[in-house]
Amino acid sequence: MRWARFEQNGSPAYGVVEGDEIIPVRGSPFEMWERTAARLPIASVKLLVPVVPLTFYAAGLNYAEHVREAAEKLGLKVELPTAADAGYRANNALIAQGEAIVIPEDATEQVQYEGELVAVIGRKCKHLARENALSAVLGYTIGNDVSERTWQKSDRTLWRAKNTDTFKPMGPWIETNVKLDELVTRVRLNGEERSVFPTNHMVFGVVDFLVAMTKYLTLYPGDVLWMGTEGATANMKHGDVCEVEISGIGTLRNPVVRAS
Amino acid sequence: MRWARFEQNGSPAYGVVEGDEIIPVRGSPFEMWERTAARLPIASVKLLVPVVPLTFYAAGLNYAEHVREAAEKLGLKVELPTAADAGYRANNALIAQGEAIVIPEDATEQVQYEGELVAVIGRKCKHLARENALSAVLGYTIGNDVSERTWQKSDRTLWRAKNTDTFKPMGPWIETNVKLDELVTRVRLNGEERSVFPTNHMVFGVVDFLVAMTKYLTLYPGDVLWMGTEGATANMKHGDVCEVEISGIGTLRNPVVRAS
Repeated sequence: MRWARFEQNGSPAYGVVEGDEIIPVRGSPFEMWERTAARLPIASVKLLVPVVPLTFYAAGLNYAEHVREAAEKLGLKVELPTAADAGYRANNALIAQGEAIVIPEDATEQVQYEGELVAVIGRKCKHLARENALSAVLGYTIGNDVSERTWQKSDRTLWRAKNTDTFKPMGPWIETNVKLDELVTRVRLNGEERSVFPTNHMVFGVVDFLVAMTKYLTLYPGDVLWMGTEGATANMKHGDVCEVEISGIGTLRNPVVRAS
Repeated sequence: MRWARFEQNGSPAYGVVEGDEIIPVRGSPFEMWERTAARLPIASVKLLVPVVPLTFYAAGLNYAEHVREAAEKLGLKVELPTAADAGYRANNALIAQGEAIVIPEDATEQVQYEGELVAVIGRKCKHLARENALSAVLGYTIGNDVSERTWQKSDRTLWRAKNTDTFKPMGPWIETNVKLDELVTRVRLNGEERSVFPTNHMVFGVVDFLVAMTKYLTLYPGDVLWMGTEGATANMKHGDVCEVEISGIGTLRNPVVRAS
């Protein structure tokens, strides 16, 4: 099942995606819901970010090759993470399918994509065990963890490097029927494939994070956990279109503009 | 004016505090509101956290003496921050006036208070100038940035060190009539004063942060910015009561228990 969030008469609404149509529901996937009789062509609606989380978690460095690449870029020693220590991103930066990634005037050329799997929490939970951890996940969507590399290197925190407005595209929808081990992530810039990797080849997987996190933290419906990216990343510039595709989920597509 | 958020018939409601009474309003301080005819004794209501932010910002190290103390504890070089780089805390950890700070079973003895001024954003804003930055602030409340020091030192991020459930007491209410330079922060453990400092003697002040942040980030009504703490902090243990008082705002009071 595929859940989209979209604008209906100026307010957010949820709907079930079937083929190229959306069936609006009353309610939301996080509580009670029922289908309405309507069917809308997806192409006719404005998609919104699939959820605005209460807390926005991110695995950060979580793929072996990307850890090596990142360490080289930042001039640091290569150190694979030894525990599933979650970090954070910020809601102000979220944008939806089709919205523009806006590079600030004073950013360098080094504004790069990071294609990521995103787990969307479906229910309030704490103290998850490995056996039942995935039952807390409603489904999966796609994130692009856009990053300004010089700020990432120079600033004390990642606030503007990763959370500048528009730097967190997420969508296009939430897919509930996912086999993690079969997923493949592909990142394309202007239609050209720049990166391809088996999505689930993480240092710490979704279950590892959920079990570690919920030992101390309560997760709430709609919380999201971005799982990190693999390999090298490249610069995006004004006029580019960046696509992150994860097989079986969909394609998150965003144009890039530079503010002037 | 003093804004409290409290539980009314099982739902959150806002009210204006006058003396030891709350006058419930229809609406909220972030939008339209009007007083109702009711008056409730504060002692008769359950206070809630004054706001649940869309994004939860924190200045982190932002007072000279605390930077020295923290560097010593973590075995690092003393380096005053050179820019107003905001960090983040997480909504799962928020608790209200009177609720218990729960120390996890496997935490060390080094679970410490940090008394902080909290600026509450009143309106959507970007590109604030120094002259008008404070007009974006609805008012101020108090935070206790509870921290487990060994996790703060050992983990790659601050997730459990600072965002374990119950580690972010905030309240008791939002005071809109504040003269920053006159504020004094006092932290008491079991009634004994452990720390006292001029609240506004920060490395980077509220205006510095708001101007720096809104160059890249849109702030939204209800976003909070915790301003950091000064001086040494001390361990809290089961049975303690921790109070953070900021003159002219109020006193945030929370008991401490250890999970078993």
